[in-house]
Amino acid sequence: MKTSDLQALGFEGDSFFFIDQTRLPFEEVKVRSNDYERISLAIERLEIRGAPAIGCAAAYALALSYKQGNKEIFHNAYERLKRTRPTAVNLFHGLDTIYTVLSSGGDYNDCINTALAYHQADAQSCRSISVFGGELLAGKKNPITICNTGAFAVGGEGTALGVIKQLHKVNPLRLITACETRPLLQGARLTAFELDKAGLPFRLIADSASAFFMDRGEIDFAIAGADRIAANGDTANKIGTLMLAQLCSIYKIPFYIAAPFSTIDAEISSGAAIPVEFRSPSELHSARGVQITSGTYPAANPAFDVTPSHLISGIITDKGFYSYPYAFSK
Amino acid sequence: MKTSDLQALGFEGDSFFFIDQTRLPFEEVKVRSNDYERISLAIERLEIRGAPAIGCAAAYALALSYKQGNKEIFHNAYERLKRTRPTAVNLFHGLDTIYTVLSSGGDYNDCINTALAYHQADAQSCRSISVFGGELLAGKKNPITICNTGAFAVGGEGTALGVIKQLHKVNPLRLITACETRPLLQGARLTAFELDKAGLPFRLIADSASAFFMDRGEIDFAIAGADRIAANGDTANKIGTLMLAQLCSIYKIPFYIAAPFSTIDAEISSGAAIPVEFRSPSELHSARGVQITSGTYPAANPAFDVTPSHLISGIITDKGFYSYPYAFSK
Repeated sequence: MKTSDLQALGFEGDSFFFIDQTRLPFEEVKVRSNDYERISLAIERLEIRGAPAIGCAAAYALALSYKQGNKEIFHNAYERLKRTRPTAVNLFHGLDTIYTVLSSGGDYNDCINTALAYHQADAQSCRSISVFGGELLAGKKNPITICNTGAFAVGGEGTALGVIKQLHKVNPLRLITACETRPLLQGARLTAFELDKAGLPFRLIADSASAFFMDRGEIDFAIAGADRIAANGDTANKIGTLMLAQLCSIYKIPFYIAAPFSTIDAEISSGAAIPVEFRSPSELHSARGVQITSGTYPAANPAFDVTPSHLISGIITDKGFYSYPYAFSK
Repeated sequence: MKTSDLQALGFEGDSFFFIDQTRLPFEEVKVRSNDYERISLAIERLEIRGAPAIGCAAAYALALSYKQGNKEIFHNAYERLKRTRPTAVNLFHGLDTIYTVLSSGGDYNDCINTALAYHQADAQSCRSISVFGGELLAGKKNPITICNTGAFAVGGEGTALGVIKQLHKVNPLRLITACETRPLLQGARLTAFELDKAGLPFRLIADSASAFFMDRGEIDFAIAGADRIAANGDTANKIGTLMLAQLCSIYKIPFYIAAPFSTIDAEISSGAAIPVEFRSPSELHSARGVQITSGTYPAANPAFDVTPSHLISGIITDKGFYSYPYAFSK
């Protein structure tokens, strides 16, 4: 197990670094920059992705901007960073945490220390999710997952993938099935990279082959992350998650969500209120930047879907485990 | 509507031609060859694909080999062609039809005329499927389909896609949803090419997004082709078909199969007896020949899945429409 070696972003010496996720798995490139504009671009270009990881990167970037000059630069950085990936609620959490330090008279060191603590708290939250999930799912051997919810998505070892890693530590898994996750291939590129590096047993499959493997009895649970969870437990996550949850309901396979408690949006009563982000059709016209069909063909590319809470066997958070019907405030 | 202009293969003047499907949709290249070895390679390389189309191409190739020389060449051609894509039952139908002509004393002209008649019969079978399907599904507006079941797969206009085209002729469809069909992208490359060329309203989607669009009420029926149908109606087809059928059962959307009656294999009592072909993991490591992740990652690549008959609302054949419980001999 070399999983803990993998750090997607962080602060070393006096500089911020991140691994450029767009070049994985072919090249593992560590980029160093203390320039908030460069870090903003990294978030926009998906060099840094995953809602919690974006929150951490934004916190570091805003803290660093304070060193670059004066309050005007700080405010420019705040506004600039807010525009990078506005759908990730963690972006605003990260930025506001640093903004508060400045507002209450903090200096550069206070800002950086707060960013470090914010990152540390995210890693700790992952740890708690892994431990709770590991206890809940002990003995299961054959998970299926979608997208990347590991070290490349968060400040720590992962949410859904963190649980999978934890299970394997205690009692080796037989086979992890990773959906390749079209169109951006986070499963084929990032999850596979992590699992391979950590020496875990896995296989990639076409997303649509998930029904085939469930039908053969080769899957004993499914686990995915979350972009946003409504107060009733309805969960928005990567496109394809709803497909997995529906297939699990048919094949009587338990389906779990693993996410920090902060992903629960108490302001939203159900999934119907979660807006769905449609991304560019060009993502379907290409695969990893290479044209695979004509760019003129119409294509519809929802970036995520919403899984109704009754299909979710349980939501594993850093504050513990919740089951249907969801009442997170209790 | 320019659909009928599209002919994936045929015999013109005194030569066989085919459109190289591996270069679509970027280039529409018409290849002419009367050499059975070249046509064998075309089948192996998927330049010609789709079970009925393979049967037609093999019939022409074997007929042409008779012109190339003597009985020895003919027998070599027969054996060579049999090895090209042995899972497609139509391959053997096409070859045996020509073989019979020779055995009963026919000459080159008899062979070619038989190949032409075989091709013509396939086109006529498509026509019947389209007409039956068009009547059955009249008034429906929003189909979803997977893989390519149009002019590039058969000798005529198509099976499932033939039905879709026929429906549109009588009463314009609102929106055809085409699954891109990983890993070989027959939907993104071939179905999109056909629909675009014919001017039909369509959109490409990631295979895993099918649940999302069903959930939104944007699909009113699903229709797919078949590689083989067991005596009880269980149907083997492109990987992802089972996913569509299961999702349809959940969202109460009718799910149809369209295929020539000859696809029904009376020797096989149920889908459990249909062997599943696993293809190279490299198809998952790449998209249209371009590497998208490391070629060293383990991947499982079933080429098709088997949909149980109770999930199929009906099977549309050239001999008419059948519904569950299936009794094809009646």
